[in-house]
Amino acid sequence: MGEFELIRRYFQRPTAPASGVALGIGDDCALLQPTPGTQMAISSDMLVEGRHFFPDVDPEALGHKALAVNLSDLAASGARPVAFTLALSLPRADEAWLAGFARGLFALADAHQCTLIGGDTTKGPLNICITVFGEVPVENGRSLALLRSGAQVGDDLWVSGTLGDARLALHALQGQRVLPAEVLQTARQRLERPTPRVALGLSLRGIATAAMDLSDGLAGDLGHLLQASSCGADLQADALASLPACPWKGLSTDDRLSLVLGGGDDYELLFSAPPAQQAAVRAAGATAGVPVTRIGRLVATPGLRVLDAQGQPLPGHFQSYDHFA
Amino acid sequence: MGEFELIRRYFQRPTAPASGVALGIGDDCALLQPTPGTQMAISSDMLVEGRHFFPDVDPEALGHKALAVNLSDLAASGARPVAFTLALSLPRADEAWLAGFARGLFALADAHQCTLIGGDTTKGPLNICITVFGEVPVENGRSLALLRSGAQVGDDLWVSGTLGDARLALHALQGQRVLPAEVLQTARQRLERPTPRVALGLSLRGIATAAMDLSDGLAGDLGHLLQASSCGADLQADALASLPACPWKGLSTDDRLSLVLGGGDDYELLFSAPPAQQAAVRAAGATAGVPVTRIGRLVATPGLRVLDAQGQPLPGHFQSYDHFA
Repeated sequence: MGEFELIRRYFQRPTAPASGVALGIGDDCALLQPTPGTQMAISSDMLVEGRHFFPDVDPEALGHKALAVNLSDLAASGARPVAFTLALSLPRADEAWLAGFARGLFALADAHQCTLIGGDTTKGPLNICITVFGEVPVENGRSLALLRSGAQVGDDLWVSGTLGDARLALHALQGQRVLPAEVLQTARQRLERPTPRVALGLSLRGIATAAMDLSDGLAGDLGHLLQASSCGADLQADALASLPACPWKGLSTDDRLSLVLGGGDDYELLFSAPPAQQAAVRAAGATAGVPVTRIGRLVATPGLRVLDAQGQPLPGHFQSYDHFA
Repeated sequence: MGEFELIRRYFQRPTAPASGVALGIGDDCALLQPTPGTQMAISSDMLVEGRHFFPDVDPEALGHKALAVNLSDLAASGARPVAFTLALSLPRADEAWLAGFARGLFALADAHQCTLIGGDTTKGPLNICITVFGEVPVENGRSLALLRSGAQVGDDLWVSGTLGDARLALHALQGQRVLPAEVLQTARQRLERPTPRVALGLSLRGIATAAMDLSDGLAGDLGHLLQASSCGADLQADALASLPACPWKGLSTDDRLSLVLGGGDDYELLFSAPPAQQAAVRAAGATAGVPVTRIGRLVATPGLRVLDAQGQPLPGHFQSYDHFA
């Protein structure tokens, strides 16, 4: 099977041109027709074997995750998904692997009406690079995109869904921790099949003052939001400890805090909103079908503190994931 | 040096927001503000060490080439470059390498006013994935983008610049052929520092009926254009044999034909235009500062023939490059 046959068989689909797509796969460039009065939101993520996923991961889960981590960036910006490109470096043309990968990829793409419009296929160490395109309205000259830089002192800090379970699964798969089989299964779903919070991102436009997605762990990611917004944060330890989905009794409160703050691969949204918007935030979560949890508030004092039930700061140094540190 | 410091030091530049870029590096998504009345042209190319370039290649040349091959796709579509994303997998954070790579990358980006707006950096086998964005006007509801599918029987076939030299250099670097030092140096420039024909692509809008860029060799690439346009082609052997820049006497006519037809890495434009447009095509080439050569014409008979000076077809099977064949 040659390169062009591979593309034709697994990635080129005889679908009608979708909304916003003027020309899809097969020419030197794809062509998007932007909706008047919108900006185009763009993000790109690269997944490398042995670094972002295990060599024996289910290819269907990998196809899902490769697109999910990109859609998560559109969600964080409040952008509606339109299209994506896929560049794929493969050690060999393994038909079973390609079929599974394409199945996982297109199931998620179809759920978000996000069209594959082009890309590249080459031979080499397994590497998946997806670039996504979404639209955000501009109203009265003002973009409705959610940025990291809009948070204000006094705003509440919120997260969607559950945090820490993906890292728990990673520790178990790396042999650092032994988990009961059913706990591992639940946590592994979170690691391998994250759910991009696209509907929530759209619902939060006009409500959230700042937003970002959580990929490298809450402590480090929040640090970027605080830096962009020039403020600090006080987090509540009890709210953080409630965030892992895993009900396993083998997890101490310290374990939970460490997984939540220093974890990664959560692909939930972190966002800020004024206290007056609490009902609106809960309504947005309900509309999107995802729980939202208030985890603290933004303060003028720079840096990040985790406070116990008595309002006293807990000691602790929480490191985010860094590929080169 | 951590991941974010690496991005800050080598890839984030304190430039004013460029035309069309509403938000650059540093948030979950970048934001482009499309010019009203345009479509967005998008292309993505992935370069893998050992496959697309030698491990010891000059990083500055590599930075140039990684962007050049993408700009070449915009050129083939007649799109004006606006912005690009860069996803980079690196075995280590080598400062000298990064500085050289960034120098080559930004020199070409600046020459085309193409802004780096985001991307990803991770650890892994060296892999460079760039996605470029350009604009094409839509006039009276009709896109001015150049496609592969618009060629008509009777049109002339043209190529820009010179062909075959990049493959000649590759053969020498792989030890398959010995070249005089000055011949290798000239040919190697073509392999390592291709010039994307952006100005020519823009000049050909409204003149060319179809266009594509040459990356896998003329014979195979032309096959895609013929398939998209449902026609065949008769090429003139003498025109083809004149295409390598290399004046070396060690190259026979057969060598030249083989390098031109079965080569690759040329990044020149292949395009069609009605015979009535010959003067306009030559004027477009002159405006863009690149020679254009008429190499044959499009015919109704499917397939590709190379004709000698007497109009007789030459025997020969010309294979294009395929990563998985």
